[in-house]
Amino acid sequence: MSAPEPTNPGEGADSTRIVVTYRIDPGIGVEPQAVAEAIRAEQTIEFPFDLAPTWIQNEVVGRIEGIDQQVVQISYPLGVTGGGLVQFLNVLWGNVSLLNGVRIVDLQLPAAFLAGFSGPRFGISGVRSLFNAPTRPLLCTALKPMGLSPKELGATAVTLARAGFDMIKDDHGLASQPWAPWAERVQTISRLVCEIDASSDHHSVYMPALNVPADQLVEAAHQAKEWGAGALLVLPGLTGFDSLRVLAEDSELNLPIMSHPSFLGSTVVNPQQGISHGIVFGTIMRLAGADISIFPNYGGRFSFSQQQCEEIAQACAVPLGELAPIFPSPGGGMTLDRVPEMIEVYGNDLTLLIGGALHRGDLSINAQRLVDAVASL
Amino acid sequence: MSAPEPTNPGEGADSTRIVVTYRIDPGIGVEPQAVAEAIRAEQTIEFPFDLAPTWIQNEVVGRIEGIDQQVVQISYPLGVTGGGLVQFLNVLWGNVSLLNGVRIVDLQLPAAFLAGFSGPRFGISGVRSLFNAPTRPLLCTALKPMGLSPKELGATAVTLARAGFDMIKDDHGLASQPWAPWAERVQTISRLVCEIDASSDHHSVYMPALNVPADQLVEAAHQAKEWGAGALLVLPGLTGFDSLRVLAEDSELNLPIMSHPSFLGSTVVNPQQGISHGIVFGTIMRLAGADISIFPNYGGRFSFSQQQCEEIAQACAVPLGELAPIFPSPGGGMTLDRVPEMIEVYGNDLTLLIGGALHRGDLSINAQRLVDAVASL
Repeated sequence: MSAPEPTNPGEGADSTRIVVTYRIDPGIGVEPQAVAEAIRAEQTIEFPFDLAPTWIQNEVVGRIEGIDQQVVQISYPLGVTGGGLVQFLNVLWGNVSLLNGVRIVDLQLPAAFLAGFSGPRFGISGVRSLFNAPTRPLLCTALKPMGLSPKELGATAVTLARAGFDMIKDDHGLASQPWAPWAERVQTISRLVCEIDASSDHHSVYMPALNVPADQLVEAAHQAKEWGAGALLVLPGLTGFDSLRVLAEDSELNLPIMSHPSFLGSTVVNPQQGISHGIVFGTIMRLAGADISIFPNYGGRFSFSQQQCEEIAQACAVPLGELAPIFPSPGGGMTLDRVPEMIEVYGNDLTLLIGGALHRGDLSINAQRLVDAVASL
Repeated sequence: MSAPEPTNPGEGADSTRIVVTYRIDPGIGVEPQAVAEAIRAEQTIEFPFDLAPTWIQNEVVGRIEGIDQQVVQISYPLGVTGGGLVQFLNVLWGNVSLLNGVRIVDLQLPAAFLAGFSGPRFGISGVRSLFNAPTRPLLCTALKPMGLSPKELGATAVTLARAGFDMIKDDHGLASQPWAPWAERVQTISRLVCEIDASSDHHSVYMPALNVPADQLVEAAHQAKEWGAGALLVLPGLTGFDSLRVLAEDSELNLPIMSHPSFLGSTVVNPQQGISHGIVFGTIMRLAGADISIFPNYGGRFSFSQQQCEEIAQACAVPLGELAPIFPSPGGGMTLDRVPEMIEVYGNDLTLLIGGALHRGDLSINAQRLVDAVASL
């Protein structure tokens, strides 16, 4: 990715600026105008505004576009994000994250900015083609529990592949535990799933978790592909959003990527602080190159509301420059009997992620029932 | 780093387990016992407890060590963190981050776990040796504002090096903006600071910001060293804590590392959710290998209280296996007249980080005044 061009001050059009909308909690007792003045300098020059040269005040510092009660809109020239996704996220939420009572509720990214990103390599249409599934929801499940050996996890994977699951992923916490070291596990399961896949009409892939040290991430992804893995699970809250971009842009790798929300919760769950759910699990994941974005569904083990989940699904789908729409994948304690409701809420452009619940009773029967229910959609 | 060994169930001693203390917000309306049961499975097997084999229930799932009103203590066997820092952070705060009303308030790491980490390469004593400063606080400042050219930033660096600052760092938001592209900036400023350093009794180093794409991070660090940079600024909230570990463990690089809190604020600022300030900016930074940890000082532009800041300083200093203690570096709107108070609160094992305030009036005079004030300590 090359650095975005600097804003041409002669143009002066908002179409060349990033617009961030912040909601200020009245509880912090600071006037929105004062907070806006602080943010626009904090996220750019981090320097007393009055001491900056006039041209920097005008062309580098964020510009207050409007204040409506507790809602503040600030625009930033593209030049400040020069250097890529890391610095973009720093402008978005770097130092402001340390302030209490500020929440980002909207984000507008101009075409000139988005042109610097290739985004999801597959997106909804690419993943659908891969699984020859033009209209139905996709099916994903996780190999668990931690503690099982590669062979035991592999046996589960075989059952799920035989039933016709599209994607069989590692539980995101499967790293390189003594019970199932990374290389042994990924090699064993890749082989087993490839064997089933070769003898089946239906395409099933194994998706290992890239819960690996930073200096082994890219190599591990390539190694997994060589062994036969057909997709990758990435944890950008732990390995950095830009590591996701690196994997998505890797043309030799060329595998669909699912993103996991691990460690990102605090960025969204506080209603008065953070970044809105849709921006984190929709817009940013898409910008970084995820093809499928996991988040905890409402009514499961976690705290997201239905509205927040729908906001994520919407952000996965709305136009975003030339970047492909991606699959929302609400998980976290989902059960078979909730599938009709989930399809009603999210529509068919959905990757169903059902884990532990499949194991209550007979795994093979439960898996087959789910595959059959979805096949007709 | 090699994967920790699995817990030997025959030992049964707590000294082989990681102990995490969580405070549960009564406002969520769930009994602490129920939250504890959820967390201990969520952070390990992520699977219905009753469906897991008995040995996994006993030896893999976290163990509730105690519940005292709203405070819950859970211990984890080292095996679950197998794979390194990424998975350790996932066990600590991966999925739990998605729950509302849970905050980690204490963390005990056994020697057997800590032995897997080399931590800070320099630590307080190593950094002190480098700058021949056996007792006084160290002095650091940031090159700003964004918008200046490499030559202009370099001229500021020359003034600060002449005055006798120990470390002259890039503002963390200096990435590769069109006004000062990364390579041109780092090369120019490295050369200028090295020139001053060579002709001076005092050792000053330039510390570039590694606000760069993930796939360029290690190479950028080595390139900066080759050009003459003498320390590195890392943003683990954006590039991942494990990227900090990779740089700290790099023996060819062998440069002190300062960590910046960008993007990490939401993990600490909500009193009812997140991880305590000391654990994030003390324990985790030290585990990952920072020699100096920046955080926003109380009474500056941000929201940290004096108590929270002292908690960070304490976590930088307390025994942590064989890992060296590190410098706390409270910044964010610090002024010259607050220096005596900061030394009184934090002691001399402190890296003073004073930025924009030095530019109010004559930079050279302000810088010299600060250096002189600190030299006598």
